[in-house]
Amino acid sequence: MFTIDLNCDLGESFGSYVIGNDEAILPYVTSANIACGFHGGDPFVMKRTVELASRENVAIGAHPGLPDLNGFGRRSMAISAREAFDITLYQIGALSAFCHALGAPLHHVKPHGALYNMAAVNAELAEGIAEAAYTIGEEVILYGLAGSELVTAGKRIGLPTANEVFADRTYEQNGTLTPRTVEGAVIHDKQRAVDQVLMMIKKGKVHTRQGEEIKIEADTVCIHGDGRSAVVFAQSIHQELKKEGIIIQTK
Amino acid sequence: MFTIDLNCDLGESFGSYVIGNDEAILPYVTSANIACGFHGGDPFVMKRTVELASRENVAIGAHPGLPDLNGFGRRSMAISAREAFDITLYQIGALSAFCHALGAPLHHVKPHGALYNMAAVNAELAEGIAEAAYTIGEEVILYGLAGSELVTAGKRIGLPTANEVFADRTYEQNGTLTPRTVEGAVIHDKQRAVDQVLMMIKKGKVHTRQGEEIKIEADTVCIHGDGRSAVVFAQSIHQELKKEGIIIQTK
Amino acid sequence: MFTIDLNCDLGESFGSYVIGNDEAILPYVTSANIACGFHGGDPFVMKRTVELASRENVAIGAHPGLPDLNGFGRRSMAISAREAFDITLYQIGALSAFCHALGAPLHHVKPHGALYNMAAVNAELAEGIAEAAYTIGEEVILYGLAGSELVTAGKRIGLPTANEVFADRTYEQNGTLTPRTVEGAVIHDKQRAVDQVLMMIKKGKVHTRQGEEIKIEADTVCIHGDGRSAVVFAQSIHQELKKEGIIIQTK
Amino acid sequence: MFTIDLNCDLGESFGSYVIGNDEAILPYVTSANIACGFHGGDPFVMKRTVELASRENVAIGAHPGLPDLNGFGRRSMAISAREAFDITLYQIGALSAFCHALGAPLHHVKPHGALYNMAAVNAELAEGIAEAAYTIGEEVILYGLAGSELVTAGKRIGLPTANEVFADRTYEQNGTLTPRTVEGAVIHDKQRAVDQVLMMIKKGKVHTRQGEEIKIEADTVCIHGDGRSAVVFAQSIHQELKKEGIIIQTK
Repeated sequence: MFTIDLNCDLGESFGSYVIGNDEAILPYVTSANIACGFHGGDPFVMKRTVELASRENVAIGAHPGLPDLNGFGRRSMAISAREAFDITLYQIGALSAFCHALGAPLHHVKPHGALYNMAAVNAELAEGIAEAAYTIGEEVILYGLAGSELVTAGKRIGLPTANEVFADRTYEQNGTLTPRTVEGAVIHDKQRAVDQVLMMIKKGKVHTRQGEEIKIEADTVCIHGDGRSAVVFAQSIHQELKKEGIIIQTK
Repeated sequence: MFTIDLNCDLGESFGSYVIGNDEAILPYVTSANIACGFHGGDPFVMKRTVELASRENVAIGAHPGLPDLNGFGRRSMAISAREAFDITLYQIGALSAFCHALGAPLHHVKPHGALYNMAAVNAELAEGIAEAAYTIGEEVILYGLAGSELVTAGKRIGLPTANEVFADRTYEQNGTLTPRTVEGAVIHDKQRAVDQVLMMIKKGKVHTRQGEEIKIEADTVCIHGDGRSAVVFAQSIHQELKKEGIIIQTK
Repeated sequence: MFTIDLNCDLGESFGSYVIGNDEAILPYVTSANIACGFHGGDPFVMKRTVELASRENVAIGAHPGLPDLNGFGRRSMAISAREAFDITLYQIGALSAFCHALGAPLHHVKPHGALYNMAAVNAELAEGIAEAAYTIGEEVILYGLAGSELVTAGKRIGLPTANEVFADRTYEQNGTLTPRTVEGAVIHDKQRAVDQVLMMIKKGKVHTRQGEEIKIEADTVCIHGDGRSAVVFAQSIHQELKKEGIIIQTK
Repeated sequence: MFTIDLNCDLGESFGSYVIGNDEAILPYVTSANIACGFHGGDPFVMKRTVELASRENVAIGAHPGLPDLNGFGRRSMAISAREAFDITLYQIGALSAFCHALGAPLHHVKPHGALYNMAAVNAELAEGIAEAAYTIGEEVILYGLAGSELVTAGKRIGLPTANEVFADRTYEQNGTLTPRTVEGAVIHDKQRAVDQVLMMIKKGKVHTRQGEEIKIEADTVCIHGDGRSAVVFAQSIHQELKKEGIIIQTK
């Protein structure tokens, strides 16, 4: 029996600014990464999103980002490992309070955007983030790019970890995602995306952009939450995986 | 035997900006209100201040403020009770994470600046703040202006509360502080400030600006942390109270 | 011959957050109030919006707000007249740079949200804002609520002013807008909204909520830019006014 | 006759947070780089600093930084050339408004911290910044690290430029500053610092950390404004240069 978690970034609205299709996506995912106010989200949005996810029995995760609301946390910043620890712990703590208020356990931590990308390749930053997650609770699952430094750091410190894979992105020979600037980095064909995920789940492999097969561990698949076709794709991949007998549940 | 708590606002530095004399003040107070990043403070400053206070056996409190760093949380904002709850819970949660990280319990919550003043007279805002404190933990002590709506809201929801008094401010007939804009609102004479505190502790009374005596409950005295003479005054009031046989300890 | 200006708040998007229907609204208005980064807008959005408005021959105005992005500048803050001057001048200056860069003159200044409302009734704040506008250039038109303190302050300092009226809001006996919290404050019937505007333009009068007629000067009508029906309403009022022979142009 | 400009970063206080010794430093410098609200400074501080500098006949420059108040603009961020243009123009525009209000011309532009460092080596960012400065006015002098990409970009676009040198930093063979992380990067010996500046001014050369002499153009010397010994050093270098017959004036 194969199992997989479907996760989605949620709660990224801010004040009067609405982004994403949170309510529409929730039925198709099993874990929600909720923004914590630095790259997106605000106290009210956090509370409401925890409530929505909790009501749909979707596992709740903290989704801490860089302090860059205008850049939506997508611009790399030269922060130290100490700063990565500090801002991650601050944000997880804030979200935890809303989880506690609504009786929903904090299930996981997944850094956002540039923080996620930097932590995938920078062992020190990865360690800072893993320590922050560990500080909140030893049972919190750390989500990171499959095979990345973040997953390694989580394991080293004693956290359960989840290797995250992408349905709609191509992979390089070394297991990293093809940068978006490279042509063909994004898979627009729905069937090909589903096939890539199925192969990752069932065979633990993925075809790289260069055409070879490499090993990859897939514990959780990232489902994008914004964009017009997001909900349709979420529903579609959910159905396709179920049809193939994959059990969709958190790790 | 009379007892009193001496509290001080700490951890209000931000990045490269240093404010206050945290390390010098800590020996003279029994509880520290630590800024949570909205009106002052940042994740690193919060961590370091929790550590400093913890090392000095000073009880740690969250000191949430309005989202107004440029105004240092001192400008009233027309927020709703719901917003008061949300921003208070967010900030308490963030500070709690650093308390947890450093093994220091969260002892109390005291709102900052304009949030404190608004909650003193606005029952709905007071309730929002009290609910946020209660949500974090039923044993957290809610600090508010002596006899204010905030103390009332804390009691109503079932929280322990502490009536805060001021050594260097005069009082009006209705028990509120004389606004700073009124001449004579600030007591500059050290001995008179000490005498006012002693009378509040021992007799539960204070002379108002108008000359009459009114009742006042004094559980904790606010010690200011910035300004050049802050440390000298803190030391002085600490010594004077001890000399008079007052036990200085948290409620 | 009657003339009227139709103005709309634009450029309120922020980073990844999109708000409003700027391109769709522009053909129906004659002046654009462009957010300046405090309550909404950011440097890129400002540049792009100045460019869009300029291309459509729509007059460009600065739309300074309170430093409260999370509250979208809609929460009153207790700022001083000095602070009103400072934040207004800062924001006008920033927008002016983009006007200058794109060869588009700065035509007017209209404060946003709570700053607008406070300046309507608070003569000191109004003066601070008027001074800031005057400092940028003596020919800049100051937009304010018809008959408000802001218009008075603008006239006193020597600025041209524009009395702003609302199509979809009811008026009280004293010429202020009925607060949104009062039932019936918003006029949902399109024809009634158009009729109200026509009466204000042609007769200089408006029916109050209480049923009487009061005098009102109408130089510019505020067209809302967000909400699903915004574009439809903008187009409709534009057509109706034209049909009635009103010349739609800036003051 | 040799001439040199002495410049200093000023106006970096923010709200209740005071940093630097602005008034004490001003008598010893000929140009002031005034923070514009992104890495430090706020509208009030900008206004007051323009006023102070103007009163002391010190030339006023805009000192735009990255949008990172908590990191004081010292953390590199992956911004595009377009973003560099946008945030630079926004900040210059805001400062220009205060210059205009106080009748003080805008004399120069010098980016701050990480933005300065990135623009020294990244030709595209340098171009974005130079374009923003050029957009404000063709006569604004662009300050950049001596021989850097920023100076090159300024020249290419047709701006007057000023090569900035440092008294208290050692240089590498390629003309860049020794990174602060390298031992010996900062020159603590006052006389050696003065000697380095004199050699740069009189001979157009500097001894590198490796011991060789390289060419360097020195139009302006950066005087640090914070730290306890800042004022003493400013006074001292000012006197030493005068004693050597160097004329201290803006370029």
